[in-house]
Amino acid sequence: MNPAQLESLHRELATVLPGDAILHRREDVLPYGFDGTAAVKQSPQLVVLPRTAQEVSAVLKIAARHQVPVVARGSGTGLSGGSVPVPHGIVLCLAWMDRILELDAQNLTLLAEAGAVTQKIFERADAAGLFYPPDPGSMKVSSIGGNVAENAGGLRGLKYGVTRNYVLGLEVVLADGEICWLGNKCVKDVAGYNLRDLFIGSEGTLGVVTKVLLRLLPKPAARRTLLATFASMEAAAESVSRIIAAKIVPCTLEFLDRKTINCVEAFAHVGLPRDAAALLLIETDGHPVAVEEEATLIEAICRAALATQVTRAATLAESVRLATARRSAFSALARLRPTTILEDVTVPRSELASMIREVEAVAARHQVEIATFGHFGDGNLHPTILTDERDAAEMHRVEAAICDIVRAALARGGTISGEHGVGLAKKRFLREQLGDANYRLLRTLKRALDPTGLLNPGKIFDLREPDRHG
Amino acid sequence: MNPAQLESLHRELATVLPGDAILHRREDVLPYGFDGTAAVKQSPQLVVLPRTAQEVSAVLKIAARHQVPVVARGSGTGLSGGSVPVPHGIVLCLAWMDRILELDAQNLTLLAEAGAVTQKIFERADAAGLFYPPDPGSMKVSSIGGNVAENAGGLRGLKYGVTRNYVLGLEVVLADGEICWLGNKCVKDVAGYNLRDLFIGSEGTLGVVTKVLLRLLPKPAARRTLLATFASMEAAAESVSRIIAAKIVPCTLEFLDRKTINCVEAFAHVGLPRDAAALLLIETDGHPVAVEEEATLIEAICRAALATQVTRAATLAESVRLATARRSAFSALARLRPTTILEDVTVPRSELASMIREVEAVAARHQVEIATFGHFGDGNLHPTILTDERDAAEMHRVEAAICDIVRAALARGGTISGEHGVGLAKKRFLREQLGDANYRLLRTLKRALDPTGLLNPGKIFDLREPDRHG
Repeated sequence: MNPAQLESLHRELATVLPGDAILHRREDVLPYGFDGTAAVKQSPQLVVLPRTAQEVSAVLKIAARHQVPVVARGSGTGLSGGSVPVPHGIVLCLAWMDRILELDAQNLTLLAEAGAVTQKIFERADAAGLFYPPDPGSMKVSSIGGNVAENAGGLRGLKYGVTRNYVLGLEVVLADGEICWLGNKCVKDVAGYNLRDLFIGSEGTLGVVTKVLLRLLPKPAARRTLLATFASMEAAAESVSRIIAAKIVPCTLEFLDRKTINCVEAFAHVGLPRDAAALLLIETDGHPVAVEEEATLIEAICRAALATQVTRAATLAESVRLATARRSAFSALARLRPTTILEDVTVPRSELASMIREVEAVAARHQVEIATFGHFGDGNLHPTILTDERDAAEMHRVEAAICDIVRAALARGGTISGEHGVGLAKKRFLREQLGDANYRLLRTLKRALDPTGLLNPGKIFDLREPDRHG
Repeated sequence: MNPAQLESLHRELATVLPGDAILHRREDVLPYGFDGTAAVKQSPQLVVLPRTAQEVSAVLKIAARHQVPVVARGSGTGLSGGSVPVPHGIVLCLAWMDRILELDAQNLTLLAEAGAVTQKIFERADAAGLFYPPDPGSMKVSSIGGNVAENAGGLRGLKYGVTRNYVLGLEVVLADGEICWLGNKCVKDVAGYNLRDLFIGSEGTLGVVTKVLLRLLPKPAARRTLLATFASMEAAAESVSRIIAAKIVPCTLEFLDRKTINCVEAFAHVGLPRDAAALLLIETDGHPVAVEEEATLIEAICRAALATQVTRAATLAESVRLATARRSAFSALARLRPTTILEDVTVPRSELASMIREVEAVAARHQVEIATFGHFGDGNLHPTILTDERDAAEMHRVEAAICDIVRAALARGGTISGEHGVGLAKKRFLREQLGDANYRLLRTLKRALDPTGLLNPGKIFDLREPDRHG
């Protein structure tokens, strides 16, 4: 926007928002110029901080009149660039809409504003003896609206699913400023198309989520954590196969490779054997008797698959200590080099062992440093590329490695993103995964719901690209 | 279609389908003129029975060229008129595409053609020690494609969810004949908009589902069935509240009212006390120890809430006998009068007791016979109206009663349909539930994906009605 456009837009926004809710000075808007994604930045010209859905609606109506794009954001912890500002746009930050409005113990639901922090929602449910399962790595900071926009996952996906599986309803502000409720407190509802699930994971490109109605579960009575290390990745993979074949569905089934193990140990000192090639963190929850039985069976399976060490937490404190090994993986790796790129490819579980080997081969081929950890139960891998974005030659090799990793996942029936979203980071691969017809459908829906393309334009796909017909 | 149009269409269809796959004689097409919904019929002019997605695609391309509407159907057990033919249209029946193509025990998935019968899918999973939870009342006959089109529910919704919760992927043929895969074997996938969930429950208005990739669970190790009767509906409702408050999530929590109890007893002789005002059928599954504990607790809760009788099945045979009380409810009621209209309103669970009382008041007010049963855990009620569609005066009162029941559900934050779909039966209420903005969105999506309105037109909503703006 040129200074005159900016001035006129600012003046109009000031008629619907209090003065403190509009930021325009360079030092004030700068923190909104990036999210958790490496190597993508764009300083915004204007940031607005609404307090109500009505204010969000008023902002969108003004933006539509001025034909200025709007990028919604929560806490800015996204890992695919979904909430990075677009040039000449407004950033609409929902951080001030952070209240938990209701916990309904009879219907097991919780209603929160979009900016409410996920961890607070977990804690509020927990205090009522209830359970909100999705636990993205960023949950202490990330907002529920952001989790909905990206359909965030976490460590409990195998047994409990992801954010989508807990959303009963959404308040959404559409591109034209209309406020709309999708869903309700009914466990079953088949009245009309499922718009709610279309908006979940749409990365702010179809509307702005302002309230979220969540489904809660009773809190599992018991939980048991095990940590097993292996001399080879194949032995770890074999253990996972046998656990699933034994009809056990652990709530957590996480994997660390050798590089990650060493790095975590150096960082967090949890007592991991430095010579281990693979580590599994396994958690089972539910009825105390069932949990004990499952833990015993899992331990036996790991030992039979030649685990070098199996530790079964006897206390909650020890359980937390073991989980630290996995929870600190990203932070530990991020210290090693200036730039950390967290990949998010996912494959069917049966393809995971071969995928991990392929990532190792890619790293060797392109001479790129890659540590891998992830959700073994889900087939969701996070190959973590340790690099330096200032080194153009290395970044060139990194880019080639990422392409190879993504294509290897697709060749195995996988997806380019399991839980981080497409945003800017993955849009160049989306058509390859979906095929022309499916990709065209996506763009058709975007055009139908946001005809002038004002909501988070350029994320997920580029509308200016021509359609291809098969 | 006039005879010339019909002849020309038939001739063209014969170029892409074998002769036995096209029905046109009155006696052959007649069985495709209705589904399980009372009082809606429309004899089709042409019925096609494709064997592959390519044949479905070819039929849709021809239909598009001729601008002839297409209504897809499976086994025709729908309860909202979703698969009733439209005038001058083709019926596309998927009954011959009924193969189960793969059970993948490593990834816990099952791939089936759309016409595969739900019960066969359940049995195939069961034989592998796995579990496909959705169990619509019609599952012995209904097809998985129909279950997906209507997002069918069943008795296990409280704990296990509905059809949607088990669909990982869909092969869909779009209005223009393009064949498209939505989803894959990955447990987590956030690549692009969630089109899969948009198509689930879209009642054949956005595309024709030809294959379904389902997620399976390990089979629960144990199951316990209890049947409790109560002298008042309030006592039954109180038991349900206390069960939920005790953090128990039964897999089944079903309710029968006095009229249904008497009728079932006369029909199936399961030994129910004729003076009971309410009956709960409760099933818990999982680890044997957990199941025993839960069953004991449930029994104590029911007794404390003054159940007149509590029976706990000791054997599988007894468990099946108790479940018969609920499973035979509809058949038992359907014998009483010539026309049986099965309502499907759903409310938040906390509103269910008040909703049941309201249904009784509506029946008295309009002098209509209504027996009520349903899924207490889900808030999903089936007030069953026993009437005679040949009696215009009575049908007038029935219509008034249905309107009152639906509005009472909406006033309680409920939905016009929990698991049967909108189809023809509920479309007059849809806008009232969704509001203008949401309703407009639905129609916008339909226009975007099926621009000439050839797929099951007139179901869910009427596109000729003008849009309303709030």
